[in-house]
Amino acid sequence: MLPHLVFRNVHLCTMVDGIATLSHGAVVCLGEEIVWVGAENDLPAFDHAEEIDCGGRLLTPGLIDCHTHLVYDGNRAAEFEMRLAGATYGEIASAGGGILSSVAATEAEIALQENAEAELACAICETGEDAARMRADTPNHRAEEKRFRRLIDQGITTVEVKSGYGVRAETEAFLLNRAKAMTQQLPLDVYRTYLAAHVMPQDAGMSRAEWVQHLVDDDVDRVCAAAGFDAIDMFCEGIAFQPDELIPLLQKAQDLGVDIRIHADQLSDLGGAQLAADWHAASADHLEYTSDAGAQAMAAAGTVAVILPGAYYFIREQQKPPVDAFRRYGVPMAVATDHNPGTSPLNSLLLATNMAATLFGLTVEECLLGVTINAARALRRDERIGTIEIGKRADLAIWDVGTPAELVYNIGGNPLWLRVWRGRID
Amino acid sequence: MLPHLVFRNVHLCTMVDGIATLSHGAVVCLGEEIVWVGAENDLPAFDHAEEIDCGGRLLTPGLIDCHTHLVYDGNRAAEFEMRLAGATYGEIASAGGGILSSVAATEAEIALQENAEAELACAICETGEDAARMRADTPNHRAEEKRFRRLIDQGITTVEVKSGYGVRAETEAFLLNRAKAMTQQLPLDVYRTYLAAHVMPQDAGMSRAEWVQHLVDDDVDRVCAAAGFDAIDMFCEGIAFQPDELIPLLQKAQDLGVDIRIHADQLSDLGGAQLAADWHAASADHLEYTSDAGAQAMAAAGTVAVILPGAYYFIREQQKPPVDAFRRYGVPMAVATDHNPGTSPLNSLLLATNMAATLFGLTVEECLLGVTINAARALRRDERIGTIEIGKRADLAIWDVGTPAELVYNIGGNPLWLRVWRGRID
Repeated sequence: MLPHLVFRNVHLCTMVDGIATLSHGAVVCLGEEIVWVGAENDLPAFDHAEEIDCGGRLLTPGLIDCHTHLVYDGNRAAEFEMRLAGATYGEIASAGGGILSSVAATEAEIALQENAEAELACAICETGEDAARMRADTPNHRAEEKRFRRLIDQGITTVEVKSGYGVRAETEAFLLNRAKAMTQQLPLDVYRTYLAAHVMPQDAGMSRAEWVQHLVDDDVDRVCAAAGFDAIDMFCEGIAFQPDELIPLLQKAQDLGVDIRIHADQLSDLGGAQLAADWHAASADHLEYTSDAGAQAMAAAGTVAVILPGAYYFIREQQKPPVDAFRRYGVPMAVATDHNPGTSPLNSLLLATNMAATLFGLTVEECLLGVTINAARALRRDERIGTIEIGKRADLAIWDVGTPAELVYNIGGNPLWLRVWRGRID
Repeated sequence: MLPHLVFRNVHLCTMVDGIATLSHGAVVCLGEEIVWVGAENDLPAFDHAEEIDCGGRLLTPGLIDCHTHLVYDGNRAAEFEMRLAGATYGEIASAGGGILSSVAATEAEIALQENAEAELACAICETGEDAARMRADTPNHRAEEKRFRRLIDQGITTVEVKSGYGVRAETEAFLLNRAKAMTQQLPLDVYRTYLAAHVMPQDAGMSRAEWVQHLVDDDVDRVCAAAGFDAIDMFCEGIAFQPDELIPLLQKAQDLGVDIRIHADQLSDLGGAQLAADWHAASADHLEYTSDAGAQAMAAAGTVAVILPGAYYFIREQQKPPVDAFRRYGVPMAVATDHNPGTSPLNSLLLATNMAATLFGLTVEECLLGVTINAARALRRDERIGTIEIGKRADLAIWDVGTPAELVYNIGGNPLWLRVWRGRID
């Protein structure tokens, strides 16, 4: 019989009612579910109870990072040095650097791995060694695993991971499968997004509209068959794809019944927020240049605004997202790291909340809603995760701090005391 | 006989010639000193050698955080929430909040500790328990120790620590002694600064000039006798002390023969940089509003400019320090965390370098000079630490990265692989 895990003596922040807290609270989990929440004084007796005295520490839902590009190879530190010397993001992208340099590094690494796979196959025949174990020991795999383990160390229980650093369907499927492999190895839920229209290969030999049509006619189905995914994402921007060029891909995503996400209005207002609303996207992300009308449309469509201060900070953007308009129209705001090697090598979700507060003026409450229930909404998993409620999944984070504000206030610290994922204590 | 510690197979970044690196380098330490540096091919044979294969990782000098306020009690997360609601730093200070709230928390905690000391004394008589061990087990001590341990975990080998959250000489001495206690317990060099003119108590009943005279006539000597210190610091600012009010304290510091440091020109140009130069201060710190003439004077005096991007970021300052002027006149720039509970709750020196690059445009090289040899200059310890050279102290950091740029580029990560302090491997 499964034991009841009883977390006693907690400062309880369920995120059901913003950051309102209850001292002397308790939470009880059974298997993967939360089965009781309330004041410790009202705690009933449970059979087979294992008690954990949390010493008055703050208990919140496990955190959710709802926008990352965690699977890639190489890094872009050299480009960072270039930018310090004065080059802009647009200039680097136009010069064929930027995203394409990560694509090249990723493709090269994957080619190496494909060779390694073939060699492994031989070695396995000869030695009978376990393939998965041998594969897990390559340096590249270790670097990627570190990025995922860091999330776990920081109290994150669900992460969204995008592909996008491949231009071939095979590479994209490979990256999505790498993300899936992490789920199988590590105690973490991974929501996988196929970032289909990210960047065109330099030798594509076709227009952007033709490239999107190629994705729709060919790559999407192949990636779906070879890897599967929860959502399709696209980069709507002057240096990427125009709204009208993306229509066939949006239609394809709708036909497949997967969530839609759009990188929208990051560097200019192309009407990306409106496009996201028109197609009932789960989220529109970045949004620095979103218009008042765009925000209003998002509210009506129930599209979540994913705020990404790491990229704003790192590329030295000056235009801030229209936070007041989101508030006015009631657009739910999520906050994420946007971890990626080019524009946001940000390794901490709590630091992202500090940046959202410091740079964009989000309140502490908005920040914490943004990495719990609103992040769950952005992933359309808010019925299962994002708050501490009976029947929700037993994903918890317990912090060595006195108040919710301290989580956002500390810059670059990590006050995690204990993480619980699906009822399992790390 | 002491063994030679031979660090082989390193990507060597001595910081003697900026961030120029040497692949396949080696460093040899004996006792607390570096005794050999060069290409691995030229490595002579050493008696009693212990070899450490560093796997091609980057080796730099141990990092130096040359401006922190690490000893205090409480935190100011609630004030952070206030600021998000629109209050300015100046408004909070004028309202009697700000620094004084940390002073109150610190004084209260110290009063508790003094009581605890008395109780401890009794307990020791009765039980014969070790006083130091019992004292080390109080919650407050643990929080402070965590802050120091975090430095060690991040490759820092020397840290400057200021007092300043006491207004009584007794409290200031207590704080400086707490910093000294950390040196005795932990593998870390601590340079201690008496931040004498920081804030006046609300019930002082005298003018600012009279308060400074009170410090000079009374507190400085008492703190010196009870705790000792390496430097005297002061807060030259509209909301603190005017340059002319600080003259007696500068004279006192000069008479004592300790280093002088000045919090200068952070919120307005009161001529703090010029004042620092006039008194041959070891450093002037913050400097957002420093004039061209101020920078020129600092260059002539050899005063180091300590750049503190964490405070700039956290208080949402818009005016940047005159980095171009510092370059033009040849003022050495250091970079530090300014860790403090009110205006820079920043917990990572590498993140401070990323902010210096991203927010102020420092190059990667300037950032890394800023946390090694220029930070050593700011502490007037550059003859002993700050570069990898024969005869210097064996303070090293070895990083799991490929290039120096990666140290600055990653936001909120910690790629430390191994730290060596005075020839001891952690």
